[in-house]
Amino acid sequence: YDSRKAGGITRSHLRFGKSPIRSTYYVNNADFVSCSLDTYLFKLDMIRNLKKGGTFLLNTDMDDETLIKAMPNRVKFQLATKNAKFYVIDANKIASEIGMGRHTNTILQASFFYLNQGIMPYEQAQELMKKYAEKSYAKKGEAVVKMNWDAIDAGTQGLREVEIDPEWIKLKPLVETHKTGDEYFDSYVTVIANMDGDDLPVSKFKEFGLEDGTMRNNVTFYEKRSIADKVPLWHKENCIQCNQCSFVCPHATIRPFLLNDEEIANAPQIVKDGVIKATGGPNVEGLKFRIQVSTQNCVGCGLCVVECMGNKMGKNTLEMVEAKSQFDQEVGADYLYKNVAYKGDKFPTTTVKGVGFLMPYMEVSGACAGCGETPYYRLVSQLFGRDMLVANATGCTSIYCGSTPLTPFVADKNGEGIAWANSLFEDNAEFGFGMRISTNQKLAHIVEILEKAKERELEPELVETIDQYLENIKNRDKVRPIITKLVDLIKKTKDEEIKEILAHKRDLLDKSVWIIGGDGWSYDIGYGGLDHVIANEEDVNILVLDTEVYSNTGGQSSKSSQTGSIAKFTARGKTQAKKNLALMAMTYGHVYVAQIALGANPAKAILALKEAEAYDGPSLIICYSPCVNHGISGGLSNSMKVEKAAVECGYFVPFRYDPRLVAEGKPGLTLDSKEPDFGKFRDFVMQETRFSMLPIVNPAEADKLLTMSAEHAKARYERIKKFGL
Amino acid sequence: YDSRKAGGITRSHLRFGKSPIRSTYYVNNADFVSCSLDTYLFKLDMIRNLKKGGTFLLNTDMDDETLIKAMPNRVKFQLATKNAKFYVIDANKIASEIGMGRHTNTILQASFFYLNQGIMPYEQAQELMKKYAEKSYAKKGEAVVKMNWDAIDAGTQGLREVEIDPEWIKLKPLVETHKTGDEYFDSYVTVIANMDGDDLPVSKFKEFGLEDGTMRNNVTFYEKRSIADKVPLWHKENCIQCNQCSFVCPHATIRPFLLNDEEIANAPQIVKDGVIKATGGPNVEGLKFRIQVSTQNCVGCGLCVVECMGNKMGKNTLEMVEAKSQFDQEVGADYLYKNVAYKGDKFPTTTVKGVGFLMPYMEVSGACAGCGETPYYRLVSQLFGRDMLVANATGCTSIYCGSTPLTPFVADKNGEGIAWANSLFEDNAEFGFGMRISTNQKLAHIVEILEKAKERELEPELVETIDQYLENIKNRDKVRPIITKLVDLIKKTKDEEIKEILAHKRDLLDKSVWIIGGDGWSYDIGYGGLDHVIANEEDVNILVLDTEVYSNTGGQSSKSSQTGSIAKFTARGKTQAKKNLALMAMTYGHVYVAQIALGANPAKAILALKEAEAYDGPSLIICYSPCVNHGISGGLSNSMKVEKAAVECGYFVPFRYDPRLVAEGKPGLTLDSKEPDFGKFRDFVMQETRFSMLPIVNPAEADKLLTMSAEHAKARYERIKKFGL
Ligand SMILES: Cc1ncc(C[n+]2csc(CCOP(=O)(O)OP(=O)(O)O)c2C)c(N)n1
Ligand SMILES: Cc1ncc(C[n+]2csc(CCOP(=O)(O)OP(=O)(O)O)c2C)c(N)n1
Ligand code: SF4
Ligand code: SF4
Ligand code: SF4
Ligand code: SF4
Ligand code: SF4
Ligand code: SF4
Repeated sequence: YDSRKAGGITRSHLRFGKSPIRSTYYVNNADFVSCSLDTYLFKLDMIRNLKKGGTFLLNTDMDDETLIKAMPNRVKFQLATKNAKFYVIDANKIASEIGMGRHTNTILQASFFYLNQGIMPYEQAQELMKKYAEKSYAKKGEAVVKMNWDAIDAGTQGLREVEIDPEWIKLKPLVETHKTGDEYFDSYVTVIANMDGDDLPVSKFKEFGLEDGTMRNNVTFYEKRSIADKVPLWHKENCIQCNQCSFVCPHATIRPFLLNDEEIANAPQIVKDGVIKATGGPNVEGLKFRIQVSTQNCVGCGLCVVECMGNKMGKNTLEMVEAKSQFDQEVGADYLYKNVAYKGDKFPTTTVKGVGFLMPYMEVSGACAGCGETPYYRLVSQLFGRDMLVANATGCTSIYCGSTPLTPFVADKNGEGIAWANSLFEDNAEFGFGMRISTNQKLAHIVEILEKAKERELEPELVETIDQYLENIKNRDKVRPIITKLVDLIKKTKDEEIKEILAHKRDLLDKSVWIIGGDGWSYDIGYGGLDHVIANEEDVNILVLDTEVYSNTGGQSSKSSQTGSIAKFTARGKTQAKKNLALMAMTYGHVYVAQIALGANPAKAILALKEAEAYDGPSLIICYSPCVNHGISGGLSNSMKVEKAAVECGYFVPFRYDPRLVAEGKPGLTLDSKEPDFGKFRDFVMQETRFSMLPIVNPAEADKLLTMSAEHAKARYERIKKFGL
Repeated sequence: YDSRKAGGITRSHLRFGKSPIRSTYYVNNADFVSCSLDTYLFKLDMIRNLKKGGTFLLNTDMDDETLIKAMPNRVKFQLATKNAKFYVIDANKIASEIGMGRHTNTILQASFFYLNQGIMPYEQAQELMKKYAEKSYAKKGEAVVKMNWDAIDAGTQGLREVEIDPEWIKLKPLVETHKTGDEYFDSYVTVIANMDGDDLPVSKFKEFGLEDGTMRNNVTFYEKRSIADKVPLWHKENCIQCNQCSFVCPHATIRPFLLNDEEIANAPQIVKDGVIKATGGPNVEGLKFRIQVSTQNCVGCGLCVVECMGNKMGKNTLEMVEAKSQFDQEVGADYLYKNVAYKGDKFPTTTVKGVGFLMPYMEVSGACAGCGETPYYRLVSQLFGRDMLVANATGCTSIYCGSTPLTPFVADKNGEGIAWANSLFEDNAEFGFGMRISTNQKLAHIVEILEKAKERELEPELVETIDQYLENIKNRDKVRPIITKLVDLIKKTKDEEIKEILAHKRDLLDKSVWIIGGDGWSYDIGYGGLDHVIANEEDVNILVLDTEVYSNTGGQSSKSSQTGSIAKFTARGKTQAKKNLALMAMTYGHVYVAQIALGANPAKAILALKEAEAYDGPSLIICYSPCVNHGISGGLSNSMKVEKAAVECGYFVPFRYDPRLVAEGKPGLTLDSKEPDFGKFRDFVMQETRFSMLPIVNPAEADKLLTMSAEHAKARYERIKKFGL
């Protein structure tokens, strides 16, 4: 398998026999090969290992004619030479008709047993599958059992054999992979992506200097995995240019652009045809506006459509449509995302609209469709990505940010962007602290060189520029142009010694150091380190993506999980209270602490991130992050709605605690929501299976636990207020 | 070396040569042997490895006649047969005359070079030593340099050669070791204590079943190391029977006793002669009172004398006198400590007086003389030792509680006492939690057996007793007599099945689970685990012996160290604030949290420990513990005074935070001191070299740091109050 959460490929090898099989090697001569997604057929060499006379099953919505037309010669050739049998089924359609949504596995399992009666007669298999379904789903009610039985029956009824033309034997069996012309991508990334990583020689790693685990950035966008069934279509006439769609997109695959005439002139037709006049005042006078979806990278989560302001105002502005109908939009994304200037200076970047025009330094990560963590990560990348050093925990973040060879990070035209590292053992608070210390050390060395230089005879302009630099050294926005000038003057100066600075050019600008991870890391495993870092007074920013559960490892309970929630290790509902990590950090007095929820108050979330980053000391920002593990009713396209509701009922309270205010004699705490209505708490949690299952699995204690849960939430809130106000 | 902090023996092996020497084996044929303490001569075979014609130097206050009379035959025989030279010096007297207190090393170093001119001519050695002293102490001023120069000169002037009688060759060279008759002690403990552990065969460890690191208790008291120069002498006529002396003793080597006529009749004469009528009401009618010092185990710290209430009232009640003059008192300790009933039921054990009559389940630990940690440990052992399980961190606690073969723990006549474990890696919060869980599991199993039994036909009295047991299962005081009855009835019952209980007899009583360590463990290294344990709601008691520094490893700074303090890693004064561990634990809401200082308010300290232990949930008690690393002016005999002063000036604030009060709608916090006078803060810290050195090593920032330190202390206090009241 690959570790991506959305559209990751899993390849299973199964052997059957009368006695136990202990082989650990792959099946290279299979009786049967099954493929659950037809797009794989084009990318992967699916039937290479099918034996002569074997059977191939494909899940597809194509009819015979379309399919035969679309099939690569490689597939046809192999089917013919192998004298194979070829079956298809439209399991997606069946699943959705039965009411199983996107769950096709029961259907395909039935097909499997039907086509492989060498294992056992189908009647027997059918009986066993139905019994098993009954056992598994009885708890969820008769209707669910019935649905699974239907799926089993459909798995045979929906099968269709496709005739193989013996003439195909004459076709050229070429593997037609799309070449980008980038050697790294074509000979390394693509090979791994095509599940052929085993074939890579060690020399490949040496060739690109990857022996130390390095990954190149600017990669994932070019994969264009086209894994969405549906993607958004923009109806420009109804758009109010609010940029909310791009603000919520976990994958940065929908973006607003401001285009000048030249950029329009150079654009592909599809872009030229799809622009409207930019609104928002004199700043954008003469510019055109466009929302561009990267349709081949979008994972189809639907969040942008759910949150679209135009839609909310009752006008059909963004609409989910059949993905395949929109793949031709991708040329627009290629052009706009990669060749057009991001015009981040037209609107204040404290607003959702302003942020929309900032380049995301993180795009197309491997996170789940609709993941609640990634919008925060993407947002931080837009605000600070240009100068960021990230020490990343292990968890979903490390998977979607760094599963070799894929990193979602991109550099801009100046080669600037996020430098990122992860170590397996949740010690990133520690090494992030090291990143800060070493950055300080480098700056101190530069300061030393400059101070010494000033004691010599230098050009007056250079002296002045050095002074300006030293004065603004910790203010990146101010110092950036000064650095350009300083470097220029140092290149020209007659003083030879000061030219040592040129060897440290990239260190002249202070870095924005971030320590990022989930609640399993921050509340539990890595908390000792986190605490040690905030106890010190160094300028680091800690971002906690709080899913209230160990998401990556399949949903274990953490100290962040709330009372009454069901997770692994707390199968009968957690009895303890959620740890008040924010308040614990606040006790230090010198730590900037915030809790944010993008879906509840995006402007305050942006503000918190900016305040935290600007604060010259440790900052901790806890981000409420809905996750696929929560079992949110209606799925993750509702994640922003959930954040809003969580805040309204006091389940999660957004606030900012700023030591700078305390130093001014003001209360440190600013609450960023209305007084919560704890009366709505129970209804809120019942929208998620992690809570709604409780009355079923633990009827005796469910009510008590859920009442306690609300009480604990309230106590958490009251304590924060008492301490901070 | 052995790892004891008080009176630990260090044996150094030195080789000299023109070229570098890389031998790692011991010197077995020494030109020169030096012994810094004359009592070693009696216990250890000091000159076994002296070569023929070699030189032996002894530091002693004895004159020739006394010395020769006292010297064991073994020593005399060897001196004569080896044809050795024998020198003595009274370095202690010289050091104290020069003003160097107990520091004899410079003096003895000079003697060494004088007697070993084979290494270099003495003039040269003298010059080098003086230069080195100048370099080392210049910072501390001319007077200190001068003092060291004097010490160097005295090292030769004070030497005296003792004539060796050739007749000694005829003496029997027997090693006269005192035998206790206890095989474990005589053939194992003593051998290690005599620095002959290397000679122990592996079979010895097997013989006593020690392969798993087990140590037997009831050991240290019998070592009688006699390492004190001075010990307390009790003037009974001036004693007010307050028991303060025993309350503050770190080594439990001074204890009050209440004796009935029979106990007096059986006592050694020295006890008979030294009793007074017990005062305190009808409870002690007819009993006699005595303070008994174990003079051969006392380490001579002087704390008891400094804190004696009689002394404080101006009457000479306890007095430090020459130790050797009091060694005959030891028979009294042998009798009273080990053979007389501890009469803990005569006074309320919430008072210092009452606690005094409780048996300490910990005695004669290897801690420093006057250690601030051990009085808390000893006190806890008196209150709960009978039923304690201890999970101990690594640090001074693990050294003075568990350096093989010595543990200070003792069992009472019923074989009850402290079960103790330590693992090196500061994970005792974790395994202490495991002790709790397994105790719960055992109790649950017992409950199950009893509940099931009740469904059968049982004798009515047994049923009633089972009910009483189940009702009081978590109340050790109440359930103890019930258990006796229960076991009795189960033995007699006709029901065979219930007799399974008899196999779990020792588990019928709930255990008092303690997790104990220093601040390096609790604030830093082990904090992640500690936090995890308090986040759960299990009934464990966490005792933090807060020396504000990693004491055992030589004084590294911890997150508990206060701003401005000098320690390893913060050599120019710590800039960060002390972590508010108590408040961080309080944020959970369900944790009982207290800070205590024995020297400031002993009654409240006892109360806190009792409340914590009784609380059915996690408790955290932070104990302010002066330490030799603090450089307390006047030494550790002032440690209780320091605790008092620390509280008065707000350096440390004693309080109790009880979730039970919050549940009743009351404020959880009770402050156990008057409003601190932060104006006294600076004067207080200046009494300790860890702070007073700051203006010398960091004059530029000292004032700022010390001002900040007081502000941080105040903020800590205010935050506790704000949260808790
Ligand atoms: C020291 C250590 N223990 C356990 C693990 C295994 N592990 C990898 S990811 C993970 C879950 C992390 O959960 P969380 O921090 O909440 O991040 P999320 O996946 O929810 O984003 C765990 C336990 C590890 N990497 N390191
Ligand atoms: C994980 C781990 N790191 C380091 C050590 C080394 N070590 C042993 S004792 C000690 C000092 C402990 O100090 P503290 O907890 O304050 O106890 P104290 O000695 O002051 O009583 C350290 C660092 C260790 N035992 N385990
Ligand atoms: S559907 Fe989801 S991934 Fe696709 S553009 Fe919209 S928000 Fe982004
Ligand atoms: S959210 Fe909707 S209205 Fe707003 S910019 Fe996007 S498409 Fe337009
Ligand atoms: S945090 Fe949850 S939703 Fe996001 S990638 Fe991980 S498992 Fe998926
Ligand atoms: S001098 Fe110290 S060790 Fe000795 S009895 Fe007194 S307090 Fe205890
Ligand atoms: S402290 Fe002094 S007065 Fe009090 S019991 Fe001890 S010896 Fe007596
Ligand atoms: S805590 Fe300090 S005084 Fe006590 S034994 Fe350790 S080093 Fe000595």
